[in-house]
Amino acid sequence: MGRSWISFITDYGLEDGFVAACHGVIARLAPDARVIDVTHLVPPGDVTRGAHVLAQTVPSLPRGVHLAVVDPGVGTARRPIAIEAADGGFLVGPDNGLLIPAAEALGGIRRAVHLRSAPDASRTFHGRDIFAPAAARLAEGADPASLGSATADLVRLPPPLLLTLPDGFTAEVLTVDRFGNVQLAVAASAAPVAVGVAWSDVTVDGRPAVAGGTFGDAAPGGLVVFTDSAGYLAVAVNGGSAAALLGVSAGSHVTLRVR
Amino acid sequence: MGRSWISFITDYGLEDGFVAACHGVIARLAPDARVIDVTHLVPPGDVTRGAHVLAQTVPSLPRGVHLAVVDPGVGTARRPIAIEAADGGFLVGPDNGLLIPAAEALGGIRRAVHLRSAPDASRTFHGRDIFAPAAARLAEGADPASLGSATADLVRLPPPLLLTLPDGFTAEVLTVDRFGNVQLAVAASAAPVAVGVAWSDVTVDGRPAVAGGTFGDAAPGGLVVFTDSAGYLAVAVNGGSAAALLGVSAGSHVTLRVR
Amino acid sequence: MGRSWISFITDYGLEDGFVAACHGVIARLAPDARVIDVTHLVPPGDVTRGAHVLAQTVPSLPRGVHLAVVDPGVGTARRPIAIEAADGGFLVGPDNGLLIPAAEALGGIRRAVHLRSAPDASRTFHGRDIFAPAAARLAEGADPASLGSATADLVRLPPPLLLTLPDGFTAEVLTVDRFGNVQLAVAASAAPVAVGVAWSDVTVDGRPAVAGGTFGDAAPGGLVVFTDSAGYLAVAVNGGSAAALLGVSAGSHVTLRVR
Repeated sequence: MGRSWISFITDYGLEDGFVAACHGVIARLAPDARVIDVTHLVPPGDVTRGAHVLAQTVPSLPRGVHLAVVDPGVGTARRPIAIEAADGGFLVGPDNGLLIPAAEALGGIRRAVHLRSAPDASRTFHGRDIFAPAAARLAEGADPASLGSATADLVRLPPPLLLTLPDGFTAEVLTVDRFGNVQLAVAASAAPVAVGVAWSDVTVDGRPAVAGGTFGDAAPGGLVVFTDSAGYLAVAVNGGSAAALLGVSAGSHVTLRVR
Repeated sequence: MGRSWISFITDYGLEDGFVAACHGVIARLAPDARVIDVTHLVPPGDVTRGAHVLAQTVPSLPRGVHLAVVDPGVGTARRPIAIEAADGGFLVGPDNGLLIPAAEALGGIRRAVHLRSAPDASRTFHGRDIFAPAAARLAEGADPASLGSATADLVRLPPPLLLTLPDGFTAEVLTVDRFGNVQLAVAASAAPVAVGVAWSDVTVDGRPAVAGGTFGDAAPGGLVVFTDSAGYLAVAVNGGSAAALLGVSAGSHVTLRVR
Repeated sequence: MGRSWISFITDYGLEDGFVAACHGVIARLAPDARVIDVTHLVPPGDVTRGAHVLAQTVPSLPRGVHLAVVDPGVGTARRPIAIEAADGGFLVGPDNGLLIPAAEALGGIRRAVHLRSAPDASRTFHGRDIFAPAAARLAEGADPASLGSATADLVRLPPPLLLTLPDGFTAEVLTVDRFGNVQLAVAASAAPVAVGVAWSDVTVDGRPAVAGGTFGDAAPGGLVVFTDSAGYLAVAVNGGSAAALLGVSAGSHVTLRVR
């Protein structure tokens, strides 16, 4: 099928050989496929973080197979699955909610299969023994139906909190990035308040902020509310960390009020 | 020789340009070779850790050249070597024991050469100046004999401790992974006690544990003894870190008793 | 244009999907290009560090496009640029000094263009929306003139301090690497004192050191002054960290005296 692309996200970390073992399995089964590592530094077992990072990255990736393994329930009854997305690409990983936001970012779920396990698969390294082989076969053009049986009801993560207030909203922090930028669970296109339009005053958790388009729109050290590169409302500090200033992390609640 | 694969492990870290400089050298000398990074986060100078991670990863990698640089003696009398393994692949790195366990995992040593140094090689960056060029040439099909002179007696790491007890064993910790899983220097196939067969009681350093197949076989927070994905006995905590709970790290001794 | 190479350095870190999003953009626009990651662990906003790491790595990289994004002024008036270097390669990134040392390492600047922005570019992720697309197009053979308008006066970083003393020099620390090796802003070929030639005594910030060629030339724990693999004078501790021993980091001043 010509060149094919596989993206790869895990919580395996970078100090062990786990990521490379999966790369090796792919290299053996799909030697012409090329792999783009999304990140392997999802905190151990943090399915929600993995789901958001993947969902916000796939729109920039070439169509292909997205292999995702954040899998605290490895080897238990949770199912290994593959999803065909509406864009024609695939997602492979555990049925624990990890894949769904990315599937939605790719236009939605066309069909899903419950992956068959190889009889000699380990019970603790399904990335190497089940998920990477399935991803490689899909990259080589295999029909998903050949990899397992059709399934429908998939596990989904609970939606993040978003509470509309008379003069703003309280929203869950979706992600915090390396720079300390705080992404809120509010798509800018569907925000309870239109960002930056005729705001004379904004506060974030009671602290004054400006509405802007980039970090430099705030004074050095100042807070800015902006629409981030993934389309979400976000809070940053010009030259600093909004997460540190506000004392928040993923899952925290932040209140934004405007006047 | 068609597509060729090079795997690459070092203690160079990821914050400097050292890994990329080696990738660059390979790209120039063997532009069609593809590189799989095993890890570059081996603790500085930790030859033992590098050896174990590489040995446990190579069985999943495609046959090719395995480039390994954990080399506290760079530029001194220790020799640069290349090993041809029984599987037809190669290992390239310093003669300090780093390559031997991986060579054994690939079926054993077929022959070894003492690599010639280029006259303009630096004395502190043999990864870029000696090892990566040799790996690239082997990937391009060079005969190892053209890269240096045959050698036989190679440096080996001391074997890890394993002491059989009447009701179990004391074993050295081979590795601790990102999740805090504690891998013991006991191949499950050769364990002094057969794991999990009719155990009514197991303790690890005096703490109660269960014998199982995966993390979820223990209660949340509980210890489980299992055969890991590399075939070693290992100890994990379901949803936690066994290394933290037991207070051990690589090289520590752990005692397992069964009844 | 056959095989083309893109190197990639940022301060994006490895825990988010930012690096992968840029890889994805390149994969879509220049699917045959191959990317070598230099590092993505430049400390956030540390343009000087990024500039030095890139400049010291490019001599080992294949000729191609060097994509560099350390860009605290993203979305402000600072200009996005591409530079054609004397070796025929290109550098792409913000006009904040980041690219100049690497351009000089590649023989100097042949021409530069102020990159046009796409109308739908985000204001906070120019790596994905401006720089990666420009790098991909250059890798595909685009004429730089087609990407923007010629420009000349580029922002440059201040030169690092170097002060000649009667019996040595005081120099700025250019970089500290993972091993704690301290690289001084003194090219060995232009040092105020010739290193190691008939030195009977050397001190570094008052501590005794030896002049040598590699780490093992000092006693374990001892200081050695040597010419590093990038051609700079550097200070190391055999089996330890010179940065920790001397209490210095990038930008610190170190005094070396000889007798």
